[in-house]
Amino acid sequence: MSLIDEIHEQPQAIRKLLNSQGEAIATIAGQVRARGIEYIYLAARGTSKNAGRYAQYLIGAVNRIPIALAPPSLFSIYHLPPLLKNALVIGVSQSGRSPDIISVIEEARRQGVVSLAVTNNPVSPMADAAEFILDISCGPEVAVAATKTYTNSLAALALFSAELAENAEMKRALENVPAWMEEMLGREDEIAQQAASFHAMNHCVVLGRGYNYATVNEWSLKMKELSGVMAEPYSSADFLHGPIAMVKGDFPVLNVAPSCIAYPSLYELLGRLREERRAEIYSITDRDEVLQLSRAGQRLAQGIPEWLTPLIAIIPGQLFAYHLTRHKGLDPDNPSGLSKVTETH
Amino acid sequence: MSLIDEIHEQPQAIRKLLNSQGEAIATIAGQVRARGIEYIYLAARGTSKNAGRYAQYLIGAVNRIPIALAPPSLFSIYHLPPLLKNALVIGVSQSGRSPDIISVIEEARRQGVVSLAVTNNPVSPMADAAEFILDISCGPEVAVAATKTYTNSLAALALFSAELAENAEMKRALENVPAWMEEMLGREDEIAQQAASFHAMNHCVVLGRGYNYATVNEWSLKMKELSGVMAEPYSSADFLHGPIAMVKGDFPVLNVAPSCIAYPSLYELLGRLREERRAEIYSITDRDEVLQLSRAGQRLAQGIPEWLTPLIAIIPGQLFAYHLTRHKGLDPDNPSGLSKVTETH
Repeated sequence: MSLIDEIHEQPQAIRKLLNSQGEAIATIAGQVRARGIEYIYLAARGTSKNAGRYAQYLIGAVNRIPIALAPPSLFSIYHLPPLLKNALVIGVSQSGRSPDIISVIEEARRQGVVSLAVTNNPVSPMADAAEFILDISCGPEVAVAATKTYTNSLAALALFSAELAENAEMKRALENVPAWMEEMLGREDEIAQQAASFHAMNHCVVLGRGYNYATVNEWSLKMKELSGVMAEPYSSADFLHGPIAMVKGDFPVLNVAPSCIAYPSLYELLGRLREERRAEIYSITDRDEVLQLSRAGQRLAQGIPEWLTPLIAIIPGQLFAYHLTRHKGLDPDNPSGLSKVTETH
Repeated sequence: MSLIDEIHEQPQAIRKLLNSQGEAIATIAGQVRARGIEYIYLAARGTSKNAGRYAQYLIGAVNRIPIALAPPSLFSIYHLPPLLKNALVIGVSQSGRSPDIISVIEEARRQGVVSLAVTNNPVSPMADAAEFILDISCGPEVAVAATKTYTNSLAALALFSAELAENAEMKRALENVPAWMEEMLGREDEIAQQAASFHAMNHCVVLGRGYNYATVNEWSLKMKELSGVMAEPYSSADFLHGPIAMVKGDFPVLNVAPSCIAYPSLYELLGRLREERRAEIYSITDRDEVLQLSRAGQRLAQGIPEWLTPLIAIIPGQLFAYHLTRHKGLDPDNPSGLSKVTETH
């Protein structure tokens, strides 16, 4: 299996998750609900941390539960873990083998609070340590750069949120994700050509907000891992607090700008970046006015609920990073200096 | 007042804080302790968010209280705030005027949970909205790039942590900060020369871990705001999960590596970056072996407790960013496209 195969497997992996894990997730949600948790403490690194960023918005907005992203080293290195009374502690790790994330779950068990392992490996040490296991079940991921484990982690967390809220409409909406993904995957040739037109880039920023703050972090990570481009993700709000100063003529600005409540401020920012700073903009959006100020972009289908856009918008991001890497003469299946399982302490 | 004056004011600003706010902070800590909070929910942007990152480690380790960094847009834009039962809600904003941060504090009041405004402006809308006010009291900050409000925010949060823990030793250690800062400020000429030798840089990464994850975020932000250099901060653990791939020959790697429990992994990473990837390393460290593999650096005084190193280590970072900016022919007092108060929603 190569990376591009796994990118194309994503719709099928979502279908498998929805078909095979729905009941298990409903059971976990029921038990968690009964335990009266007050907040979620989530530990993850790399791509899995980006799935955590998605949960921060989704579970915050839908379930009204605050989510803290844990600094794992407080547990694994400093050995001064905070007291987690009334928390639900979630570890997200596709391999289930990162020692620092395992140490957070182990501490949750020691303190007697509810713990949940979200993983592609239900027989891993992290899964062994947790009270509950949410198996994202997308089959083995061989490529070093995570793709299907990312989108399945998002879908698993979204299904968990829907079950926790007992929201049938959300569950039905999730069923549409594979078809929306397939439509986007069908545009690979066009995206490859667009990436070719950016082949000389060696740095960029990636902007987005709200639910898609996760997407811009994950897109940036794929750009860095695969192509070596220095791609820095920003919430468009944080971007105004300083980093905007580095955008000068021809600076590439990638962005994810679906119609949403935060859209007007992002559109205004993109306009400023184009007019005042001559940025070269690549957009993933459903809005004509954004595509008009962009050098290139991909149109999101109409009617995707905002909370599901991260599952679709990352697809052109992955394809853009993959083809940019090839246009640079690099091998996306052998990124420089990385291995599949990164065991940080 | 210009930026360089404010950088040099930092020791005096810390003295003023410790002398004038000790009693007020002790009172707040006593009242917060009595309310039995279970976790902290902290909202901030830009430099203030970096102070929040410091609190995440310090208050996590010392007071064993988990800290969530809030996504402010859930409150200000989505209007779907999470339920904050048993939380202490902290807003950090030097101006006290960022609408999104104010909205988090206002929601905390509506929900009847404890709220604390950490600000340089005790008559601001954020201070008005909060139950308690922690005045970082460093006098007006005129330069666009925040410096003394950053270090005073760290010191105020550290004093709050010490009072919450009723730890007299921590309070005594804080008294030494101004002298350590002055020693570092005395090396400005040498730092200016070192920055000159990096004047051609237009990108870099800034690595650190634990308490100094805050420092590397803040140093990166100063680099971006002032010099326009694309400086990306990483926890050295997250760096191994992908971004390391972008470091190739001559890539500048700034880092903060004090002796601490996380030091060995950072030293190993710096060695790999130097040996395998020919990175150009600039270090702020108390270790000879790190300085030996660096092109240049600054030595931290011996004996600074790890939890206070962020207050000292940011000083050479600020001076490096300031002088790099001047060597690039730019004006550090007029950074491109920024204003002092950024009112994000």
